[in-house]
Amino acid sequence: MTEKTNTQDNSVLNGTKISRRDILKTAGVGGVGVILGASGLGGLLSLKEGNAATPDTKEIVPFYGKHQGGITTKTQNHVYFVSLDVTTAKKEDLVKLFKEWTKAAALMTAGEAVGELSGNEFMPPKDTGEAAGLSASNLTITFGVGPSLFIKDNQDRFGLKQKQPKELADLPKFPLDALEERWTGGELCIQACADDLQVAFHAVRNLIRIARGKAALRWAQTGFQRTKQSDTKNETPRNLFGFKDGTANPDVNSEKQMNQTVWVQPGDGPNWLVNGSYLVVRRIQMYIEVWDRTNLREQENTFGRYRDSGAPLGQKDEFETLDLQKKNEQGEYSIPVDSHTRLSHGNGSEKILRRAYSYSDGMDMKMGSFDAGLLFLCFQRTPSKQFIPIQNRLAKMDKLNEYTSHRGSAIFACLPGAKQGGFIGETLFN
Amino acid sequence: MTEKTNTQDNSVLNGTKISRRDILKTAGVGGVGVILGASGLGGLLSLKEGNAATPDTKEIVPFYGKHQGGITTKTQNHVYFVSLDVTTAKKEDLVKLFKEWTKAAALMTAGEAVGELSGNEFMPPKDTGEAAGLSASNLTITFGVGPSLFIKDNQDRFGLKQKQPKELADLPKFPLDALEERWTGGELCIQACADDLQVAFHAVRNLIRIARGKAALRWAQTGFQRTKQSDTKNETPRNLFGFKDGTANPDVNSEKQMNQTVWVQPGDGPNWLVNGSYLVVRRIQMYIEVWDRTNLREQENTFGRYRDSGAPLGQKDEFETLDLQKKNEQGEYSIPVDSHTRLSHGNGSEKILRRAYSYSDGMDMKMGSFDAGLLFLCFQRTPSKQFIPIQNRLAKMDKLNEYTSHRGSAIFACLPGAKQGGFIGETLFN
Ligand code: HEM
Ligand code: HEM
Repeated sequence: MTEKTNTQDNSVLNGTKISRRDILKTAGVGGVGVILGASGLGGLLSLKEGNAATPDTKEIVPFYGKHQGGITTKTQNHVYFVSLDVTTAKKEDLVKLFKEWTKAAALMTAGEAVGELSGNEFMPPKDTGEAAGLSASNLTITFGVGPSLFIKDNQDRFGLKQKQPKELADLPKFPLDALEERWTGGELCIQACADDLQVAFHAVRNLIRIARGKAALRWAQTGFQRTKQSDTKNETPRNLFGFKDGTANPDVNSEKQMNQTVWVQPGDGPNWLVNGSYLVVRRIQMYIEVWDRTNLREQENTFGRYRDSGAPLGQKDEFETLDLQKKNEQGEYSIPVDSHTRLSHGNGSEKILRRAYSYSDGMDMKMGSFDAGLLFLCFQRTPSKQFIPIQNRLAKMDKLNEYTSHRGSAIFACLPGAKQGGFIGETLFN
Repeated sequence: MTEKTNTQDNSVLNGTKISRRDILKTAGVGGVGVILGASGLGGLLSLKEGNAATPDTKEIVPFYGKHQGGITTKTQNHVYFVSLDVTTAKKEDLVKLFKEWTKAAALMTAGEAVGELSGNEFMPPKDTGEAAGLSASNLTITFGVGPSLFIKDNQDRFGLKQKQPKELADLPKFPLDALEERWTGGELCIQACADDLQVAFHAVRNLIRIARGKAALRWAQTGFQRTKQSDTKNETPRNLFGFKDGTANPDVNSEKQMNQTVWVQPGDGPNWLVNGSYLVVRRIQMYIEVWDRTNLREQENTFGRYRDSGAPLGQKDEFETLDLQKKNEQGEYSIPVDSHTRLSHGNGSEKILRRAYSYSDGMDMKMGSFDAGLLFLCFQRTPSKQFIPIQNRLAKMDKLNEYTSHRGSAIFACLPGAKQGGFIGETLFN
């Protein structure tokens, strides 16, 4: 047979016939926040955040480090998000799963296959193959654990009950919630983000394949977004309502802000989650056809911002501090009391790191319209002081509710990062 | 208010506040097959295929020309495909729709908004806005008409009955078809392809919005694919079974082959379709979990090609002519009799231009697995002599059928291209 070897070695860490690494050498220049590192596999695996750069591994976000990638990483163009349920009853299986996931994720984020792409003809190839020849595309893989991993139907399957953080609890039911089982909950989650959807899909698929017999898919959702291409200024992306979305996010480049807002700190709760973060996911349908028939003033009053510039109403620049006291000629607040910006901002004390993607899932058969909206993903240190109070205010009176409906919901604790040689979940399971 | 004008002019052809054109000047270098042309709107609209290039309009595929774009255009990374049904009973509405669609498509493929992005605050903005600031991303928009536009429930609603080509008939039921109503049929179709999913979505959404009261969404399907990035050699993309897909396609750069295989020729049928093409769409679910448990030899025997190289079994190079007579040591044909390549190739007389995309629609709730597969799109001059006989052979004995299921199906006549000043559909409706 053509171009074949007869190696029987199928272990995850072994060489691949078509190395995705080879491709990286010819890949295009990466975006902001991309780390350039050494090119060999050994080099890649030992990369740490902020490491020195050589010019031949582009579009790679380092996997190992203090924190997991995909949280403060510059938002990539696509997300493939999956929620899973555990199917094994044994803790050792779970530990094995996280060890294997860690190895596979380290390889894939470095642009490598998870094992040989073809070799032993009497075995299924270790890697599913559809990303062969593609660059790493800034792939990040972020693992999380849900409340039901710790206790489910009153059962402490894995002896983890004592380790459940108070903050890792099912979210309360909010007014107007229209949640559907098929987009809700989960014991584990994987968020794969990449600039290439095929790369993100490949990652999730191979991780789920590795999980066979230990965990199974519960629900899956893809999302997309696109900032202005090739723009050094890195313009704020627009959501499907045509507005800039992400303007008032905390600064991912400020360690101080991230420690205040995103990363769990010592003393916050159980130690195993320090340097991790809580992820809240909401699948929010957006009634784009209704929105598209709404006049511009109403649209702008809904968000409390100008559509063109993204500036707060009554103000000039997108990034200006909100002037919540300012009134217009009619003596009303420029930023209306029921506007999304005013309500989500509140008194400014609750902040979250939003990392949302648009989704579009064909047609909503019941409504005869697009099933499109926002896969709202946000990270935070303390959900009870961040997402929950904000969403309570929004659910009560946000004008945006006329155009949206929350269809899915889940909360996960995203584990701290792993050191080279360690594994994601180590602090929880050991 | 900030940065606003008070223009009341909402006509489709009028200027935009945030011009997507402005962005093109800073956009990255386009891929193979991208036409570089003049930068002004006037310049763009008058671009013809193969026109001379100036360096400041990148990632634009010319809209006007002998043929529609999106057929022989180098496959972009994303497709947004929609099927629509006509809701008006008046032919003049239909004509008006195609005129408006033509104008809007010409603008959007040139990286422009379909109208102002913000202006009159008492009106909804003409353009939905989510592509503001994005490059044209090689957007193509391809319009087609289905059999039921000509006659539906025995009614000749638009006086088009006499114009229906014999070839534009509902596809026969093939063995193993498992078609679902929600992915099948349609009176009109729009295929929007772009390297940016947000740009493709924006295009389809705005075209459907323009169609309000005249036509409505019937079904929608997105798809993705990715060739090796930044590769001048333009490697064949891989499908979700990890195999190179598209190898034996006819050469889109050969006018002769395209005239033989893809473009309807004078004498083939009604004159209005000359320079158009027939599109067959099949939504084919792929059981990737089952595939992933299949050994390499079985996988390769299923396709009749090597997974690594894409070469026919028993041969060396991906692009070698199939040697269908070659036998292996066991005296069996190297390319098995029930393999997909052998059966789809047949005696080599039937060719189609495949332009397929992978899809992944979250979870198949019934199967508890991914709902993933191939949005199979193929173009041809005469379906009865191309797709239909091939699919008849495949449906009967293709080994691939063990791993796939045809869930959706439709056929459309894709109209010839329009000249600047004309409109898509002109030859049909006049
Ligand atoms: C489809 C649903 C939603 C859409 C379309 C949306 C869109 C927006 C937009 C356009 C802005 C203003 C620009 C910016 O600062 O990013 C904004 C701000 C914000 N949104 Fe949302 N949002 C949605 C749901 C939510 C939810 C569920 C939450 C949390 C419970 C949330 C929290 C926030 C916060 C905290 C801000 C910044 C407020 C500030 O401090 O100025 N949003 N959102
Ligand atoms: C999920 C479904 C399908 C998959 C995964 C698939 C995949 C492939 C692959 C890997 C090849 C070999 C490489 C190449 O030449 O591109 C191929 C060839 C081909 N396929 Fe498919 N295919 C599918 C369905 C179909 C259908 C429905 C048709 C048409 C009825 C079709 C027609 C062809 C043709 C004409 C060739 C080239 C044969 C030759 O002349 O060598 N395929 N396909």
